[in-house]
Amino acid sequence: MEKIKRTKVAEALKRTDFGATVNVKGWVRTHRSSKAVDFIALYDGSTINSIQIVIDPTAFDEALLKQITTGSCISVVGELVESQGSGQSVEILGKSIEIYGLCGSDYPMQKKGQTFEYMRQHAHLRLRTNSFGAIMRIRHNMAIAIHQYFHEHGFYYFHTPIITASDAEGAGEMFQVTTKNLYDLKKDEEGHITYNDDFFGKMTSLTVSGQLEGELGATALGQIYTFGPTFRAENSNTPRHLAEFWMIEPEVAFIDLNELMDLEEDFIKHCVRWALEHCKEDLEFLNKMVDKTLIERLEGVVKEDFVRLTYTEGIELLEKAVKEGHKFEFPVAWGMDLASEHERYLVEHHFKKPVIMCDYPKDIKAFYMKINEDGKTVQGTDVLFPQIGEIIGGSVREESYDKLVNEIETRGIPMKDMWWYLDTRKYGSCPHGGFGLGFERLILFVTGMQNIRDVIPFPRTPKSAEF
Amino acid sequence: MEKIKRTKVAEALKRTDFGATVNVKGWVRTHRSSKAVDFIALYDGSTINSIQIVIDPTAFDEALLKQITTGSCISVVGELVESQGSGQSVEILGKSIEIYGLCGSDYPMQKKGQTFEYMRQHAHLRLRTNSFGAIMRIRHNMAIAIHQYFHEHGFYYFHTPIITASDAEGAGEMFQVTTKNLYDLKKDEEGHITYNDDFFGKMTSLTVSGQLEGELGATALGQIYTFGPTFRAENSNTPRHLAEFWMIEPEVAFIDLNELMDLEEDFIKHCVRWALEHCKEDLEFLNKMVDKTLIERLEGVVKEDFVRLTYTEGIELLEKAVKEGHKFEFPVAWGMDLASEHERYLVEHHFKKPVIMCDYPKDIKAFYMKINEDGKTVQGTDVLFPQIGEIIGGSVREESYDKLVNEIETRGIPMKDMWWYLDTRKYGSCPHGGFGLGFERLILFVTGMQNIRDVIPFPRTPKSAEF
Repeated sequence: MEKIKRTKVAEALKRTDFGATVNVKGWVRTHRSSKAVDFIALYDGSTINSIQIVIDPTAFDEALLKQITTGSCISVVGELVESQGSGQSVEILGKSIEIYGLCGSDYPMQKKGQTFEYMRQHAHLRLRTNSFGAIMRIRHNMAIAIHQYFHEHGFYYFHTPIITASDAEGAGEMFQVTTKNLYDLKKDEEGHITYNDDFFGKMTSLTVSGQLEGELGATALGQIYTFGPTFRAENSNTPRHLAEFWMIEPEVAFIDLNELMDLEEDFIKHCVRWALEHCKEDLEFLNKMVDKTLIERLEGVVKEDFVRLTYTEGIELLEKAVKEGHKFEFPVAWGMDLASEHERYLVEHHFKKPVIMCDYPKDIKAFYMKINEDGKTVQGTDVLFPQIGEIIGGSVREESYDKLVNEIETRGIPMKDMWWYLDTRKYGSCPHGGFGLGFERLILFVTGMQNIRDVIPFPRTPKSAEF
Repeated sequence: MEKIKRTKVAEALKRTDFGATVNVKGWVRTHRSSKAVDFIALYDGSTINSIQIVIDPTAFDEALLKQITTGSCISVVGELVESQGSGQSVEILGKSIEIYGLCGSDYPMQKKGQTFEYMRQHAHLRLRTNSFGAIMRIRHNMAIAIHQYFHEHGFYYFHTPIITASDAEGAGEMFQVTTKNLYDLKKDEEGHITYNDDFFGKMTSLTVSGQLEGELGATALGQIYTFGPTFRAENSNTPRHLAEFWMIEPEVAFIDLNELMDLEEDFIKHCVRWALEHCKEDLEFLNKMVDKTLIERLEGVVKEDFVRLTYTEGIELLEKAVKEGHKFEFPVAWGMDLASEHERYLVEHHFKKPVIMCDYPKDIKAFYMKINEDGKTVQGTDVLFPQIGEIIGGSVREESYDKLVNEIETRGIPMKDMWWYLDTRKYGSCPHGGFGLGFERLILFVTGMQNIRDVIPFPRTPKSAEF
């Protein structure tokens, strides 16, 4: 075969130097044969679009052509021509074909229109479909958007530990990490398992949040963000929960509540805007195949000023709705945690735009949130989105050593390993705050997908750790 | 205090609108007092440099000024003036000071010139020192350089799973991940612990490499890279080993050995060039304080064409060296794995520049490497660096289903859970390859630091999982 530099499909589709000899490599999406002409749709992952290879079957060995079925991997050299049909404006008149790998009729991704449930069982191959190609390219772009945003705003990417000996966050059930021989567990005289022979010399788990270590970073480097895997050993078999997910947690010194809400809004708009600008074709595909209101919803988020209101104001609106006959499953009263139905009522029915809520009752929020002067509420701030509900949860942190210790003691939080966290308030304490964003929640919103297992390559859920 | 928008120290030091009223917030590096004038060096993490605050002590409460010791957190409003002394060109005549958090004399980071060993024991506060500020800013920049490189070259960031049920890579000892109640371990009739009651319904561990899943990504999306935490439960207490480290693993479809070596060289030069361009002040600090040949070494890597040679050629050079009287601790012979001393001889003594070695003996490399026509060597390729030794390990992957299965069987690798990996060769197999880079190895090289525990915020090593 002629030696020509390979052109990626995305680039080939943009070329206009018709008549040029080009080489494309990729996988066969479809192969339609007739006596007069063969059409091979070839993709290589660089774009959701395939390029059409037009083949004169009389110029090729019939047996060779017949082998090239859906899923096969080939290299094609041919002439770049203006497309005769509709669809793409470019196609390739195939002159020679090299077969890299054939694909038998037992190929699980052969048929079109398989269910997402079916594809989940073949997660190692679903990446080759149009839908998952689009989702993965969008996922990539969202990660890049995030790094780009923080880098340009002077934040430092900060790697908080995955294996941790602390369980103070109390954000959920934890996975234990061990190298102990489970067939020969050492115990002390009282029958407690001892950990001095474990790898780290103590009991360790997978992190549920990098925030506390992130605060160490922010109170030294000014502004940091984490972006790493996070774990919850909750037995929640729902379309919204993963045992292993990726989380982004920026933390900023010298920020107040209003500035924090500004940051949240600006950041999330940046991400959605990035998707609209950089993932146009993939979004159009998903808008057509998955959710016909997707692009409209994304554009809405970018255009609208988010509503800002306090929890107390939110409760008043919900109580008014109840009075006017709106039915909620869960009751509405000051002091309760908002349910998803309440959040979605405010976002989707009342305001019809994203909402940033703040100043929540102290008792329903975490110990580290800054207590307001009323003594009852804390400077927590959640961003509520259509379809998704809470997409961001953040707060200004309590910077007073005494107030923080009091809160820890009142709540009975085990703080024996937390001296290092308190040291941030002991030595040069500073006002600071930050938020957490579940990466897959963002991807759900941006792709319009309904099940969180479909926006991560290989989901980890109860009883499932395949691939 | 007047309400003025805060200026970060990095920005303030660049301003030339002398006479302007500015507000800076940060931590006190030093506070020197005299009768006539006080000097406070204030840093906020935005740069390694502090800004000098000049205080007329007669205009302030003496008791207040006295409290402002090293480590204290303050906000200063004052007038931006041209510096009278040497050093920075800008300083601030302090008009008012707000104290956010004082810092007692028991502050562990108080003294200058503490050892790295001491600072490791206070890893939660060492981030506030000049050295670790510099290292962390460089670490951030290297992560950004990596994402930027791959994004611009059409790779997709691909999140391979952290928790895995596969142990086929065999790259090292693994950490077990479990939610089992260790006090009530269920066993089968033969006395084997059963895992159907564990979270994932089977025994699971922390990943030692994302490569195998990365190949699933590359053979669907064309080009991917991973960048995530990786784990080795090896009891190695050395300055080069971490139990938890970050790894970058790009994987590319349709790449051959020469193109792979081009990619490795281009990629690593991009990273080092980025450091030289974006981390100038931090590198100058480390060049002065840690390693006086650092910048020279970095510039050398960017300028030089890397040497490329086969393993066999490398062995010949080493044998020649032995014949000429060079003493190695370990013997030299074709078929053996190169020791660090051999790699460094070639890089530092013989060629005096980075080396890319390829075509290693099959038996010392992993099962998935593409076998050359000689049947004895494989298309592995390592990049060897001065000081560091192997910084990148990569290979073209064996794309033949039959050859791969044969290699797996010959080596007795347990492949019961690996059907999904073999499916990439079964359905539309394609030539592909990739490499792995230990992120902390790169940071060691770029910072000139000697101990890998000093280039990650919170190192995990045998018997240590602090903070």
